[in-house]
Amino acid sequence: MALIVHKYGGTSMGSTERIRNVAKRVAKWARAGHQIVVVPSAMSGETNRLLGLAKELAPAKPDTAYSRELDMLASTGEQASSALLAIALQSEGQPSVSYAGWQVAIKTNDAFTKARIQSIDDQKVKADLNAGKVVIITGFQGVDDNGNITTLGRGGSDTSAVAVAAALKADECLIYTDVDGVYTTDPRVVPEARRLQTVSFEEMLEMASLGSKVLQIRSVEFAGKYKVPMRVLSSFTPWDIDIHEEAASGTLITFEEDEQMEQAVVSGIAFNRDEAKISVLGVPDKPGIAYQILGAVADANIEVDVIIQNLSKDGKTDFSFTVHRNDYAKTIDLLKEKVLPSLGVAEVLGDAKICKVSIVGIGMRSHVGVASKMFRALSEEGINIQMISTSEIKTSVVIDEKYMELAVRALHKAFDLDQA
Amino acid sequence: MALIVHKYGGTSMGSTERIRNVAKRVAKWARAGHQIVVVPSAMSGETNRLLGLAKELAPAKPDTAYSRELDMLASTGEQASSALLAIALQSEGQPSVSYAGWQVAIKTNDAFTKARIQSIDDQKVKADLNAGKVVIITGFQGVDDNGNITTLGRGGSDTSAVAVAAALKADECLIYTDVDGVYTTDPRVVPEARRLQTVSFEEMLEMASLGSKVLQIRSVEFAGKYKVPMRVLSSFTPWDIDIHEEAASGTLITFEEDEQMEQAVVSGIAFNRDEAKISVLGVPDKPGIAYQILGAVADANIEVDVIIQNLSKDGKTDFSFTVHRNDYAKTIDLLKEKVLPSLGVAEVLGDAKICKVSIVGIGMRSHVGVASKMFRALSEEGINIQMISTSEIKTSVVIDEKYMELAVRALHKAFDLDQA
Repeated sequence: MALIVHKYGGTSMGSTERIRNVAKRVAKWARAGHQIVVVPSAMSGETNRLLGLAKELAPAKPDTAYSRELDMLASTGEQASSALLAIALQSEGQPSVSYAGWQVAIKTNDAFTKARIQSIDDQKVKADLNAGKVVIITGFQGVDDNGNITTLGRGGSDTSAVAVAAALKADECLIYTDVDGVYTTDPRVVPEARRLQTVSFEEMLEMASLGSKVLQIRSVEFAGKYKVPMRVLSSFTPWDIDIHEEAASGTLITFEEDEQMEQAVVSGIAFNRDEAKISVLGVPDKPGIAYQILGAVADANIEVDVIIQNLSKDGKTDFSFTVHRNDYAKTIDLLKEKVLPSLGVAEVLGDAKICKVSIVGIGMRSHVGVASKMFRALSEEGINIQMISTSEIKTSVVIDEKYMELAVRALHKAFDLDQA
Repeated sequence: MALIVHKYGGTSMGSTERIRNVAKRVAKWARAGHQIVVVPSAMSGETNRLLGLAKELAPAKPDTAYSRELDMLASTGEQASSALLAIALQSEGQPSVSYAGWQVAIKTNDAFTKARIQSIDDQKVKADLNAGKVVIITGFQGVDDNGNITTLGRGGSDTSAVAVAAALKADECLIYTDVDGVYTTDPRVVPEARRLQTVSFEEMLEMASLGSKVLQIRSVEFAGKYKVPMRVLSSFTPWDIDIHEEAASGTLITFEEDEQMEQAVVSGIAFNRDEAKISVLGVPDKPGIAYQILGAVADANIEVDVIIQNLSKDGKTDFSFTVHRNDYAKTIDLLKEKVLPSLGVAEVLGDAKICKVSIVGIGMRSHVGVASKMFRALSEEGINIQMISTSEIKTSVVIDEKYMELAVRALHKAFDLDQA
């Protein structure tokens, strides 16, 4: 008998028919003798519907103001889907109970709309599990010290599930989703993309941060911190599939670096076109210049990703960085108004039509020449590299967005990712 | 400065445009220097939508089983509308905060789907009011001693509002709805029906129990118990109507029997066709017979309204009563199976095509001949009376349902209700 946490995304909970399927699957696991805690997302579309209503009422500052009330509002989606799942389970003859975040309680700080989990009380949940009930805990939400409802931000149900698994010392946290695992890259771009049977926690962390949308990055961080074994698998297999087959399906996120992993130099290719590039040209090359430019950007709460500074020439240098495309225009305006005047002759250029492509692999630590192999593959396709950023287990390049698919396919082939 | 509770029904909260109107109206009251607590219902249709999903998942016993989870589910509707109203108020520049029932807390017993309020903590609410905030409290819901969410049953938002007004010792509880007050009878049946400026609590209680749908009966009971002045008024007047005009509009439910009221013998005509008549014929006229028949009905949780027993003839009598139409077939079956065999030759007859028409008036206490005036008016229209039931301030008759409108119009005229 194991204690297992199941997490179901919004698509898996998207209709009463799908909720019934989730209930049958969960009941199967319970009948097999396991203690099961389920963390469901809101039915797909529900969170957007609710926040859309809020936006109609407060068009001015939909994302930042009214945040306490936005959390009161958005948290209802998960509460409703959790209750519906409890009803479906009871209808299947499986005793169950649903709890909102505050009922468990899942304590968070008071950073509304992006709260962080601080503690989870396992008392009620353990008692219900020992009484033979499936326990359903709303994802995405918690409660602060003053009894206000908080939410964890988009994708927060993944984080809830891992945090619950950590608090309960669960044997495994199964993330059921609409894909059947983590792939070497997006199969919509590279049809030969392969599902990985295992991926290391650190690789998963890089992939999540680089734009692979399978798992929310904070949930991976949480899993890493508390060493929660986590598996990504499909909720669209038939619910009555053999339980041992199901338990071994998908992709397991591991914490041990076994020998097999050492052999795969690169595990996957991540990419996104969420960013825009901004260059400040002709900047005086003197100490404090990076802070002068990026300090103003940071003060405006704009996140910066890749940063490069060119070699100096005639005491002048060029300084480039990327921001999220949503912040592009705002950043350009900010630089022109607040930064350029104090820099003298500097000029700002921007390009929103870029993408970032990255190779990720824990094996890069112990292998040389991986980056140069990447650059050669791109060069053979005639793709110009605009920016480069590296870490211990990944190398990212910024290129023209029109080459994105071409670059991903070329790299997938160059690193033999289509070979098992 | 007064402390005033506003309650808005589902229709008044039915769209973001209507929520914005509610916000503007509430902000007007707050700007006039009043402390305002708002109790909103769920957006119209939302509760039905949620319970419809539950019904799809558990078709067998939708109303009785799974009741804890049904409350988890249904309570989300009011939480969402409360948060939306808080956002709309803040967008109007009016500080506000919304609380779910458990946050206040509104403590109830654990009778899920039909819980009763036991206590309301006014600490948080008073502090927020004193800080200049409009406080929004979800209607329809509370929390039991074990931290489970409960709901108060259909129309429970009225009860929440009155209970909150009682706990806060509010100066008045304004029930905003889609009608502009309490009428002498339904204006759809009698175009000459007049809005009452005041109605006594006892008359309102009778009208609510007799089928007038303006207020939920439990809210009127609550108002009576705690002497909460309660006003029914329209949420569809322009929000910027003069506040003194608005404060005097609608119908005030009063507790003092002033002289004016003594003059109006009959205040209103109530009617419904929710009931069905059942007669048990040829019953032996001996002690215990009423219990023998109605005891079995009560044991099956079927509520009985009007009861009459004819004069005995040859040691036999006829026994008639009315039940809700939904319970009609069930009651007939029950009598045939469990009661008739032990009564000997008794026979059961039923009639679902009846209606109940009632005259209500606190003045009936001190006036004679009111009932006979009613019977004469009906007789003049050739309407046969099947059953009669009286109390201190109302007289009800059961008649063929095809005469309902005719009877209501005749009585409205006979008692001069069209005259101010």
